[in-house]
Amino acid sequence: MEKIEIKRHSLAHILASAVKKLYPEAKFGIGPAVENGFYYDFGNLKISDNDLQKIESEMRKLASQNLPFERKEVSKEEAQNLFKDQPYKLELLKELNNISIYKSGDFIDLCAGPHISSTKEINSDSFKLTKTAGAYWKGDEKNAMLTRIYGLAFENKKALADYLKLQQEAEKRDHRKLGAQLDLFMLDEEAGQGLPIWLPKGAFIRKIIENYLYNELISEGYNWLYTPHIGNLNLWKTSGHWNFYKENLYSPIQIEEEQYLLKPMDCPFHLKAYKSKIRSYKELPIKYAEFGTVYRYERSGTLHGLTRVRGFTQDDAHLICTPEQMPKELEKLVRHGLKILKNFGFKEFNIYLSTRPEGSAGTDEGWEKATNTLKQVLSKLKLKFQIDAGGGVFYGPKIDIKIKDSLGREWQCTTVQFDFNLPEKFKLRYVDKDGREKEPFMIHRALLGSFERFFGVLIEHYAGAFPLWLSPVQAWIMPISKAQNKFAKTVNQKLKENGLRVELKDENDTLGKKIREGQIQKIPYLLVIGEKEVKSNSVSVRDRKKGDLGKMKIIKFIAKAKEEMEKKK
Amino acid sequence: MEKIEIKRHSLAHILASAVKKLYPEAKFGIGPAVENGFYYDFGNLKISDNDLQKIESEMRKLASQNLPFERKEVSKEEAQNLFKDQPYKLELLKELNNISIYKSGDFIDLCAGPHISSTKEINSDSFKLTKTAGAYWKGDEKNAMLTRIYGLAFENKKALADYLKLQQEAEKRDHRKLGAQLDLFMLDEEAGQGLPIWLPKGAFIRKIIENYLYNELISEGYNWLYTPHIGNLNLWKTSGHWNFYKENLYSPIQIEEEQYLLKPMDCPFHLKAYKSKIRSYKELPIKYAEFGTVYRYERSGTLHGLTRVRGFTQDDAHLICTPEQMPKELEKLVRHGLKILKNFGFKEFNIYLSTRPEGSAGTDEGWEKATNTLKQVLSKLKLKFQIDAGGGVFYGPKIDIKIKDSLGREWQCTTVQFDFNLPEKFKLRYVDKDGREKEPFMIHRALLGSFERFFGVLIEHYAGAFPLWLSPVQAWIMPISKAQNKFAKTVNQKLKENGLRVELKDENDTLGKKIREGQIQKIPYLLVIGEKEVKSNSVSVRDRKKGDLGKMKIIKFIAKAKEEMEKKK
Repeated sequence: MEKIEIKRHSLAHILASAVKKLYPEAKFGIGPAVENGFYYDFGNLKISDNDLQKIESEMRKLASQNLPFERKEVSKEEAQNLFKDQPYKLELLKELNNISIYKSGDFIDLCAGPHISSTKEINSDSFKLTKTAGAYWKGDEKNAMLTRIYGLAFENKKALADYLKLQQEAEKRDHRKLGAQLDLFMLDEEAGQGLPIWLPKGAFIRKIIENYLYNELISEGYNWLYTPHIGNLNLWKTSGHWNFYKENLYSPIQIEEEQYLLKPMDCPFHLKAYKSKIRSYKELPIKYAEFGTVYRYERSGTLHGLTRVRGFTQDDAHLICTPEQMPKELEKLVRHGLKILKNFGFKEFNIYLSTRPEGSAGTDEGWEKATNTLKQVLSKLKLKFQIDAGGGVFYGPKIDIKIKDSLGREWQCTTVQFDFNLPEKFKLRYVDKDGREKEPFMIHRALLGSFERFFGVLIEHYAGAFPLWLSPVQAWIMPISKAQNKFAKTVNQKLKENGLRVELKDENDTLGKKIREGQIQKIPYLLVIGEKEVKSNSVSVRDRKKGDLGKMKIIKFIAKAKEEMEKKK
Repeated sequence: MEKIEIKRHSLAHILASAVKKLYPEAKFGIGPAVENGFYYDFGNLKISDNDLQKIESEMRKLASQNLPFERKEVSKEEAQNLFKDQPYKLELLKELNNISIYKSGDFIDLCAGPHISSTKEINSDSFKLTKTAGAYWKGDEKNAMLTRIYGLAFENKKALADYLKLQQEAEKRDHRKLGAQLDLFMLDEEAGQGLPIWLPKGAFIRKIIENYLYNELISEGYNWLYTPHIGNLNLWKTSGHWNFYKENLYSPIQIEEEQYLLKPMDCPFHLKAYKSKIRSYKELPIKYAEFGTVYRYERSGTLHGLTRVRGFTQDDAHLICTPEQMPKELEKLVRHGLKILKNFGFKEFNIYLSTRPEGSAGTDEGWEKATNTLKQVLSKLKLKFQIDAGGGVFYGPKIDIKIKDSLGREWQCTTVQFDFNLPEKFKLRYVDKDGREKEPFMIHRALLGSFERFFGVLIEHYAGAFPLWLSPVQAWIMPISKAQNKFAKTVNQKLKENGLRVELKDENDTLGKKIREGQIQKIPYLLVIGEKEVKSNSVSVRDRKKGDLGKMKIIKFIAKAKEEMEKKK
């Protein structure tokens, strides 16, 4: 266990100790360390967030007292006696055999540890209580509702402050909030939970991304497919998904004598396309790509904006090749994936190589060979990577590329997965040079992952201020008064003819109001036109980030914008 | 009843009469006129298509005998006696009250008529038996299987010959056959009935069409949406589709406490997008567009290639505007629809205005006003149209534009439908100039209809030889011998850089074989490169339609191809 986790766990005890002092009637549930902090669940405790300050003060008092954490092993009888007034502890005791308790000051808890040796190890500026919430005892809604108190804890004051700042920044960038503010997408429970509707501005950005990716993939030799969103259930029985992933699949729809499944993945259709003909080694590699919308069940409680949904569109592809072609194809694939991600403005990546999990398909030899191939490809590309032992899929090892966003948070995007299972299950074949039928190798891959999640990440990464090539509206043209309306119209026309996405804002509002609205809408350029600009065939350019850039000839602004648009590629 | 229908019906009797002569033990079912001909169902008749010639000869003999068709009314008892050996006729008799029989020569049939007065009215060259097939008595699979004999019949020999020629041509152009031959799409019963998979070449064409349409619509001021393929069932309960179209909808999927429907149409999602904000009259008209894939139940027996499927993608749009804006918007819409269809190479259109059906939503006044608006728009555009009385949808009148393909067949494409129902059901509102909330008007429209059906029609219209801008591969570059391979590569590169979709065919096959293969694949241009072409920086151009165009400088071919690509717009 990491040191900070031990501290967090000990802080949970200190929290309980403080509560015991202030609310002697409280009953104690459990209090673990969690990511970034800790919590403790209490019965018979009626408090609100307003009471947290008082509890926090009491904790600081305890933390400053240099109280030792003393461990003791006790018999079940001793423990039952010790916790005779604590029904939740008694319930926990029933399932325990080796019982240890921890004592810190007046507070004794049933706990396996480990803990810090003394409260002096805790810097009293390094933690903070954040909120209260209801939580069912043991997470079961049939049990009593307890009061959970959450806290944050870090090594020191600065780390806590940094985290709080990051949180605040993350809240400002929350894609759900910005999605509504900028009219990018909507989630409407009446329409369907976890089923986003892309509103015009978001849809426009998605279309730019789709076109960019489509052109990239076509020039990389991918073949496009369109496949349906339902298919005969037998497809996924054959693939094994019905068996392995059933809890994430929806109930089949009966159509006449057949059962159809809302498609959870595209692979079986792509393999059907492969099998539409006898294939020769000369045709390989075949790379099928599709923007495939798939549906997977997630519990309604776990749904979250665009990043956890029930329906999403993968930038999906399947690569089918001879065993000899695999290393080179993998190399191209990883290189291409990184290029794409970089073009969206991401600069840091964490790469993971996931190895064989329990109960997986394929042979030891196959797994070893495939895993080594993946390793060699990453080494050849001089990419640092971490091993995620046992993190592979049931059908093969994989490479995951996770991006780090502007707040340093990690997001899963690109995945490149070997598949030992489907070529066999769907009896894929190709006729080799020697005239014999052989089984090809197969790769699943997605570069962005899903448009929904990737867009959610993009929104937060850029805080809604998308780069010029992705901005649905790139500039507003704002005449100061009616006298400039005619010239503004000409400018509008001229910029449009040059492929720029501009809007003419000649409403009768004040310039100040328009500028504020443009800033809220995160418009990259606000082009102000007054008398002087008309005379000099110019616009005054206000850059979203750099502020006022001064007067600029129209032709120069067009060149500047075009240059910026090209930057990504 | 039209005269030709009466003849066809009489020919069914003559067929039965011939069968009676040749196979006295046969039992008689029913024999109606159908589109282009007639059929008759027989029990206890074991024949094959090989026997049709004999039967046809016998029919001609009868037809040349000037036999009168004599009608007589009889009592049920007389009829039962007359048909005592004819079990199917006896069964039919049970349900009849006013009974008439027709006698022609030795053959008497239970029949309401009308018929020709004598067989001399039939030109014995104007009909033809085509095939036999099994058919259940009364179409019920629980009944006996009878033998159905089909025949064609027209006014005269020429009309029959024309029809047969058209049929032959249509068979050659059958999109199911060409779809397989050209690798455009596949239908795989194991993957799912009525659920096409677009193979790379077909998908490539679809992408061209999608991009073309998308750009057209964006420049027409449409706003794009992406919406999910399932939604809460309540959406379609609210819209009324669950009630009106239930037989075409799939069973809902249970997700936790809710029911979700595989989406049969996009409208409710588009209305949700409209309702994501309070709307002002200043924002109207709002035009939402989406390539929305929808799913509707069709009986497996009625599925047909791409033209009758269970899942298809509509080029769907919804226009929401003030009542005052409607005429102008409708005009733009119809004009734009025709422009698009013309750009795909269709030249003839039949336009229908469908009026109020029984049991529809809305008021008399509303229907009259809307129908008149549609009429006025068509008149203003100087478009001829026919009235389809009572052919409107339950929610409003509509304009349908049907295209005529190169064989003169009519296909439904563009539909523009008024909707009185949804604005009310979904409580759509906008704030008008006077500050009051009002209900907007609404139009559903699709220009191509569905990509699937439109593509099926395109394949048949062009017999697979798509115009240059739609061709996935526009030219093959074919060096005559290895000596020209290097130059051929340069040409390949040069054409690609100029945005042409070309393939280098430098395999070690004979030129003759490559040309034949290119013709089968309907490649628009085959570019042959020999010694002379290398020397003169040229290619010899073989046009798919016009044949050999001779040697042409590369730069000239590029200009020619680019010009042809632009033609559509």
